[in-house]
Amino acid sequence: MAPAYFSPETASLATELYQQVAHLPLICPHGHVDPRLFAEPDYPLGTPVDLLVIPDHYIFRMLFSQGIPLESLGIPRRDGATVETDHRKIWQIFAEHFYLFRGTPTGIWIRDELRDVFGISEKLNGQNATAIYDQIAAKLAEIRPRQLFEQFNIEVLATTDAATDSLSYHRTIQKSGWRGRVIPTFRPDVVVNIDRPDWHESIQQLNEVTGSDIRDFSTYLRALQNRRAYFKSLGATSTDHAALTAYTEWLSATEADAIFQRALQRNATREDAQRFTGHMLIEFARMSLEDGLVMQIHIGAYRDHNPRIFEWFGRDKGADIPVSAEFTRSLKPLLDQVGNHADLTLILFSLDESTYSRELAPLAGHYPALKLGPPWWFFDSLNGMRRFFDLVVETAGIYNTVGFNDDTRAFPSIPARHQMWRQACADWLAGLVQRHIIDRSDADEMVVDLAYRLAKQAYRLD
Amino acid sequence: MAPAYFSPETASLATELYQQVAHLPLICPHGHVDPRLFAEPDYPLGTPVDLLVIPDHYIFRMLFSQGIPLESLGIPRRDGATVETDHRKIWQIFAEHFYLFRGTPTGIWIRDELRDVFGISEKLNGQNATAIYDQIAAKLAEIRPRQLFEQFNIEVLATTDAATDSLSYHRTIQKSGWRGRVIPTFRPDVVVNIDRPDWHESIQQLNEVTGSDIRDFSTYLRALQNRRAYFKSLGATSTDHAALTAYTEWLSATEADAIFQRALQRNATREDAQRFTGHMLIEFARMSLEDGLVMQIHIGAYRDHNPRIFEWFGRDKGADIPVSAEFTRSLKPLLDQVGNHADLTLILFSLDESTYSRELAPLAGHYPALKLGPPWWFFDSLNGMRRFFDLVVETAGIYNTVGFNDDTRAFPSIPARHQMWRQACADWLAGLVQRHIIDRSDADEMVVDLAYRLAKQAYRLD
Amino acid sequence: MAPAYFSPETASLATELYQQVAHLPLICPHGHVDPRLFAEPDYPLGTPVDLLVIPDHYIFRMLFSQGIPLESLGIPRRDGATVETDHRKIWQIFAEHFYLFRGTPTGIWIRDELRDVFGISEKLNGQNATAIYDQIAAKLAEIRPRQLFEQFNIEVLATTDAATDSLSYHRTIQKSGWRGRVIPTFRPDVVVNIDRPDWHESIQQLNEVTGSDIRDFSTYLRALQNRRAYFKSLGATSTDHAALTAYTEWLSATEADAIFQRALQRNATREDAQRFTGHMLIEFARMSLEDGLVMQIHIGAYRDHNPRIFEWFGRDKGADIPVSAEFTRSLKPLLDQVGNHADLTLILFSLDESTYSRELAPLAGHYPALKLGPPWWFFDSLNGMRRFFDLVVETAGIYNTVGFNDDTRAFPSIPARHQMWRQACADWLAGLVQRHIIDRSDADEMVVDLAYRLAKQAYRLD
Repeated sequence: MAPAYFSPETASLATELYQQVAHLPLICPHGHVDPRLFAEPDYPLGTPVDLLVIPDHYIFRMLFSQGIPLESLGIPRRDGATVETDHRKIWQIFAEHFYLFRGTPTGIWIRDELRDVFGISEKLNGQNATAIYDQIAAKLAEIRPRQLFEQFNIEVLATTDAATDSLSYHRTIQKSGWRGRVIPTFRPDVVVNIDRPDWHESIQQLNEVTGSDIRDFSTYLRALQNRRAYFKSLGATSTDHAALTAYTEWLSATEADAIFQRALQRNATREDAQRFTGHMLIEFARMSLEDGLVMQIHIGAYRDHNPRIFEWFGRDKGADIPVSAEFTRSLKPLLDQVGNHADLTLILFSLDESTYSRELAPLAGHYPALKLGPPWWFFDSLNGMRRFFDLVVETAGIYNTVGFNDDTRAFPSIPARHQMWRQACADWLAGLVQRHIIDRSDADEMVVDLAYRLAKQAYRLD
Repeated sequence: MAPAYFSPETASLATELYQQVAHLPLICPHGHVDPRLFAEPDYPLGTPVDLLVIPDHYIFRMLFSQGIPLESLGIPRRDGATVETDHRKIWQIFAEHFYLFRGTPTGIWIRDELRDVFGISEKLNGQNATAIYDQIAAKLAEIRPRQLFEQFNIEVLATTDAATDSLSYHRTIQKSGWRGRVIPTFRPDVVVNIDRPDWHESIQQLNEVTGSDIRDFSTYLRALQNRRAYFKSLGATSTDHAALTAYTEWLSATEADAIFQRALQRNATREDAQRFTGHMLIEFARMSLEDGLVMQIHIGAYRDHNPRIFEWFGRDKGADIPVSAEFTRSLKPLLDQVGNHADLTLILFSLDESTYSRELAPLAGHYPALKLGPPWWFFDSLNGMRRFFDLVVETAGIYNTVGFNDDTRAFPSIPARHQMWRQACADWLAGLVQRHIIDRSDADEMVVDLAYRLAKQAYRLD
Repeated sequence: MAPAYFSPETASLATELYQQVAHLPLICPHGHVDPRLFAEPDYPLGTPVDLLVIPDHYIFRMLFSQGIPLESLGIPRRDGATVETDHRKIWQIFAEHFYLFRGTPTGIWIRDELRDVFGISEKLNGQNATAIYDQIAAKLAEIRPRQLFEQFNIEVLATTDAATDSLSYHRTIQKSGWRGRVIPTFRPDVVVNIDRPDWHESIQQLNEVTGSDIRDFSTYLRALQNRRAYFKSLGATSTDHAALTAYTEWLSATEADAIFQRALQRNATREDAQRFTGHMLIEFARMSLEDGLVMQIHIGAYRDHNPRIFEWFGRDKGADIPVSAEFTRSLKPLLDQVGNHADLTLILFSLDESTYSRELAPLAGHYPALKLGPPWWFFDSLNGMRRFFDLVVETAGIYNTVGFNDDTRAFPSIPARHQMWRQACADWLAGLVQRHIIDRSDADEMVVDLAYRLAKQAYRLD
């Protein structure tokens, strides 16, 4: 076994616990891998830079923070302006600045990925950049995404797909006879946020994919229900909803329709948009009660904080920044309606760790419908996981949490991320045993729950 | 000694420190035990479920969160609807779900209580549920609350009592000649929160118990002063005040009376209610300056968050959820008036741990009147205690804190809770000694201060 | 070596790492030492109380919190009322209450200072107070500030100076031929905060020191630019800005001038003041882009919270209390203008630790202009440092931080403070190595970066 991230005090017991789960299949119920990778057996993985640098905002945001222009890293400009195309040159820059990732999870993922997927044990730096590039490129010429999927021992991989997506890659995968389980997730943000510039276009798309004629709030709801059924038919078990805040509000049918009409006529106000989003979260929770899709809510990212980056490079370019969150008051209208339903599963994610012990754990430790997602985004790290356990479990227990999801766009980093989680679990549980808070037999069950069973159950992946 | 919650690194020194305080009497200056238990020598403790499940919202909130209806746990309905009455059946449900409490303080308390009070060393589960029920029931048939009080080595136990309470049980206890010290605490929330539906009724009760004729703000204040004197005469040394926020504001006599009149006429607004509560916190602080009662303020619980639970089961049923808190600006009007008085003791409790280092420790490390209560409610746990020490002491020292209080409704859990605190103190102090932050002689004094002396002094229980 | 603040588990490796930096020169890029100390070679250090008690609000705020009047500690009254002048008596009080500092950084600094600067190894208490006073006094009679500066191995010491300051002591130091590097820092708060009672006076002073005739916003800006150039000419490499909140807003030239005119005419509103401060932060960032001065922003202290203390004793008397902070939205207007400039260095300090992982690390891990200052004020402690590392580095890396600054008014505490930081770094890094998060060669570089290089680079002190 490669060296593990255990504290010296817990290492011996943590190793024993970890070995029980190290080789369990990976449950990946939430993430952003492109399903196209698996649609055709021969889909190519590209260069080392295509695979490891260009799609990974964790990496290029750090380089950018130290003054390296995104253009020099090959990140495509929306206006078609020239960016670096020499991937060896980009790799050299990355390698020379790899020291920036010391002590970060990104540094660990990259190192573990190079070692475990590409057989590279040297630490990346400016001197060995070319040699390592060649080694990775050679390996990439040999392997295909489906092989990696199997080699990674992935039991199920959920992608995240716009409500208007045709899911054509998913259909192709399912028809192909390949045994890998890749399923979609219904994400309706673009058709819900009436203040988005592309909202009208997305409603038009929704009309097309559902054969609807959306002209009021009720035809809109019907189209969404229709769409959820389509996602379910292709294996989806969950939906995903992102919002800046957890604000919810139940509007009367008249109010909801009035806002919807204003939106159609491009007259909606910013307040309309917030209220509409808040209302739709409740509508979606009610739909979940009916169709059984697990509902995920991701709260707290201020998207596209840097206008220059957005203008030049678009969304998801490392310029999303968290804001403080509030759940107790904000979710009350939603919980008043559906919180007591044990057959609903509503999974909350937060970018504000101060809400873990103050709001999220007390809420999840009471409402049957609520469960807590694992540490998200900036907190998907060894310290982030430890804080999550320490702040959440004493109030909510582990059985109101849902295990792990890697939430990644970087397909080859999946095993490294699950390994980090599983080691963090083993380390934490070993500490509980040593402090006589739980006994060894508890730990033996809990480590499997956290590494595998909770995610499978919560996302209804049986 | 039973296994302790010490880290392996500190265990040896922590054990030495703990042994110095393990057998000190328990100071219980704040809690919610029913004084009736001690009014008659033969008061029965009921079934295991009466004692351990039905009164403990920590327990049934967790079971409820996993979809178990409160009715099936025997929690009485306000409307008299049928609930489970077979306590063996309830116990079976509890036992089958005891695994939910893995890693929680409730799990530790129950385990320690079963072991130390009832002599049960097996881990509770579905298989041994009946046998353990029988063992507890047999013990409960033998013992009485006063015996437990003595066996627990409780030096003093403060209850929490509505300002309008007759304190008849306290009078009975004191007349009975029993040597146990059980004292009341003056809690005026119900007569202060003018937006409560039962406010008028409680003012009427206040009239009755004080022989007053409350018709304006000054007669109201006089009735409260009168009542405080009565509580003092029965041994009270402190008052307790709960509020959603720490908002304080000093109103002119005219303003205060105008709001009071609107309240009497059922015309008070929500804003009136907030301002009145904020003003009354200052009035009570001024009364404390006069009569010497220690003032406790508990901030941050959104009460009765779940309307269905409130409607069917009432208050204190595990559906109170914290909200974020603010002290620096909110308490300023109060502190402007009384903060510099060293002869006032004002003890603050927070459910928002982000205020520990940011606001509470800096405030308590400056104002002579302020002290910090121990970690409260969801944070009365090993991690909660460690975070409290780590976040508060560097700025405020331990001498601006007030030791421990168990704040419990669950009488038999008192020793387990104090034991957890005392072990958490010993563990923390051992770490400080090992890191050469304090020396051993400091630790020897501090452990006794934290376990015993600080609570006794702060609550004026000498 | 004196005992170090290492955890037993990391002590061996941490000691090795620490020894690599223990004797490096001290970089002190931000602090509040009085430059007068170094202007003349024979400047006297005064009594032990002059040196250690009266200027140190960390010390007297703790004593005050326990009911000791500031008058009895010799803190001068603004109204000239009598305060204690017998320094032996003051020292006795301090010594008797030194136990209050158990577990606090102040307690550690004092102990280390007494040991390393004054050769005193006994723990201060009421019994040995006089003997220790005599020992310190004897030493103080012998040494002078410049000698201490050299003995402390200070490479550079930056003071903090009002924009209107003549910097006469700095000029004297530079002319004196002494080789110690003492440089000023440009702090314009008093001429920026238009709601300060002394604002008009400070504008008058600004006129005088710059030979300006400030009558509108543009003459005001020119005077400030002029002043920055003067500070630079005396060695300044940075500016410092304190504000209650991080609010920024870009005003049009017309708006800015309108507010400025209202301020001149004493008609500015509170809202004007906030907007003006928010605008000036952006103006200063733009000036930094031009003149290359590093810009520091300290956010979140509610100044002079205790009106009685302010009235009697003035500013900086231990009565500043943090408030919650917000950066993501507040700094956006500033970052929209200058955030992408890699040649600007903007260093943020926060008193709200909940912003570390939620806002500050994500911002600094993206924007080229942003870096994070070390834990500040109440958090300049072992736990504060560890929380900073644990919350910030995983997202921002260490290369978006700026090492340490002692930020102290207490000159002789400088070595103790740097030692604490360096040991905290070594301890943290040793833990990372042990958990295989970084390797030993990474740690060897990082410890020097954190102890020395990062501060030197970020503050452009090469």
